[in-house]
Amino acid sequence: MDQRTEIASLGEFGLIEHLTKNIEINNASTLLGVGDDAAVIDHFGRQTVLSTDLLIEGIHFDLSYTPLKHLGYKSVVVNLSDIYAMNAVPTQILLSIGFSNRYSLEALDEFYAGVYAACETYKVDLIGGDTSSSQKGFIISVTAIGEVAPDSFVKRSGAQENDLICVSGELGSAFLGLTLLEREKKIFEETGSQPDLEGQAHIVRRLLKPEARKDIIEYFTEAEILPSSMIDLSDGLSSDLLHICNQSKMGCVLYEDKIPFNEEAKEFAYKLQLDPTACALSGGEDYELLFTVAQADYDKIKVNPSISIIGYIAPESEGKHLITRGGNKHKLIAQGWNHLNK
Amino acid sequence: MDQRTEIASLGEFGLIEHLTKNIEINNASTLLGVGDDAAVIDHFGRQTVLSTDLLIEGIHFDLSYTPLKHLGYKSVVVNLSDIYAMNAVPTQILLSIGFSNRYSLEALDEFYAGVYAACETYKVDLIGGDTSSSQKGFIISVTAIGEVAPDSFVKRSGAQENDLICVSGELGSAFLGLTLLEREKKIFEETGSQPDLEGQAHIVRRLLKPEARKDIIEYFTEAEILPSSMIDLSDGLSSDLLHICNQSKMGCVLYEDKIPFNEEAKEFAYKLQLDPTACALSGGEDYELLFTVAQADYDKIKVNPSISIIGYIAPESEGKHLITRGGNKHKLIAQGWNHLNK
Repeated sequence: MDQRTEIASLGEFGLIEHLTKNIEINNASTLLGVGDDAAVIDHFGRQTVLSTDLLIEGIHFDLSYTPLKHLGYKSVVVNLSDIYAMNAVPTQILLSIGFSNRYSLEALDEFYAGVYAACETYKVDLIGGDTSSSQKGFIISVTAIGEVAPDSFVKRSGAQENDLICVSGELGSAFLGLTLLEREKKIFEETGSQPDLEGQAHIVRRLLKPEARKDIIEYFTEAEILPSSMIDLSDGLSSDLLHICNQSKMGCVLYEDKIPFNEEAKEFAYKLQLDPTACALSGGEDYELLFTVAQADYDKIKVNPSISIIGYIAPESEGKHLITRGGNKHKLIAQGWNHLNK
Repeated sequence: MDQRTEIASLGEFGLIEHLTKNIEINNASTLLGVGDDAAVIDHFGRQTVLSTDLLIEGIHFDLSYTPLKHLGYKSVVVNLSDIYAMNAVPTQILLSIGFSNRYSLEALDEFYAGVYAACETYKVDLIGGDTSSSQKGFIISVTAIGEVAPDSFVKRSGAQENDLICVSGELGSAFLGLTLLEREKKIFEETGSQPDLEGQAHIVRRLLKPEARKDIIEYFTEAEILPSSMIDLSDGLSSDLLHICNQSKMGCVLYEDKIPFNEEAKEFAYKLQLDPTACALSGGEDYELLFTVAQADYDKIKVNPSISIIGYIAPESEGKHLITRGGNKHKLIAQGWNHLNK
């Protein structure tokens, strides 16, 4: 970026005006967006779903290898993923940011370009937010709002005995992307050599520019599937499946050989002597959907190439287990990303 | 606080469980609260109003003189104030916090005690949020959701020529409370002497534990008043009245002698050789409601002792002015709190 405009030169209201002047409204239910004390949404006959996330520099993202535009995109997507995980359709977001004087207006524009790109891709409206300075680092808070037909929302707690455990897409790639970028960052800091990301575009993209599984929710409507429980994979398969089991008061059996992987990611894992299964179980940020359906839905599920059946729900008394490729039975334990232990 | 429990000992999910186990649901429209990917609200036949604020330690609050319980209370109230400023009734909040390892579980409990106290006072439900560590300082993001009867929400942009400019309560006290606490902090740092807050309970309370003007919105419904425009006073009377004028494309005449003050606050201002009018115009965080009504509503407004009529809306071409006690005419300029210039 060639230009550097000090944000203080605009003032807070000038900045808000600057950042929001190109907002386009996609949803008829958006009655009033940015520019007043609060936004207004019309929801006659629909139910409203809400989710919020706080993203903090140095904890959730590292700006030394995260382009601001990607960060803006991802900040929106991870919230929309929570809305889809309720079987709902996201319609609006509120976005607040805090930033130190290290950031120029051009930097914020990059960030917002990513935010608006995500709004466009997922057809959601940015309807409000807050801007503030921070003493240190970049702080992002996103609240996403969605709609669902009355009582069609899907909780984590509805899994039933013998339900099929399903997952969209493939797992572990985002964690491998993070591992690669952290490794290259370390090499750069120690030796000054530029990152070698050749052939690793997939895993890097999975980390830096994830997508939310809008298509899966659309397929549910089309195929008339109502999952019994659902969650989005942000903490790792193990941790998130345990959420479903614990909240449903159920056990589970998960088959290692059914977990879906991307070939490029798998090769990279082997190169680093990492177990791809461990990456899927304990890595995070895949933003795939993990859900359970009744066995009666088997035919509808198996025809969708984006969905893998990876196990089944068992009675609570049978515990939560992983059956390895070799046929061994391991207790499933949560080793997800725990920001609080960092 | 005698006990110090390290938050890491609970883990993130243990912490969320701990912080949310006592939530009580007040609103029938709350279908699903904390504990899933998103919350669900039912809004048949009502319109939804949303607002969000980001509060950052060192920018918006100083923990050296702000009790965490008050901070929790205030974090909720300032958001509810935005909902009331739309002529809506708040129903739910989402709350995210980020905190460094300097904070113990007991400290977070104090903060949440304040949050729950505000939820109880204003009958709103805490329905979701996010918890995270931060590299530095305490970070709070609150999103408030409210309801309003179809098309009864009040924007900033509806003020009409000759409308009366009205304000609730009294102004400038929070700024004087801040001035006092900042002064005492400085004295403490320089000399070690304990703060002298005697006789200043009112202004300190106005800063640390503000209330949102629920009663005014209730009076509007009761008296069948629909303001033409409204905003809550967070940046100072000057800045916020200019928001109404600019968004309504109108001018205004404001009378200095009509601005409502608290006597204790006024005396403290004189003691510090501060002009109470300047405190009202440029100080912030009063969280009173500033609104305009048609002249036809005069009789309904004048009988409410909590409302002062402080001026009127003029054509845009006549500009925005303050008429001083001495009869002089000054151009109204925004000198509100500007976090970005700090």
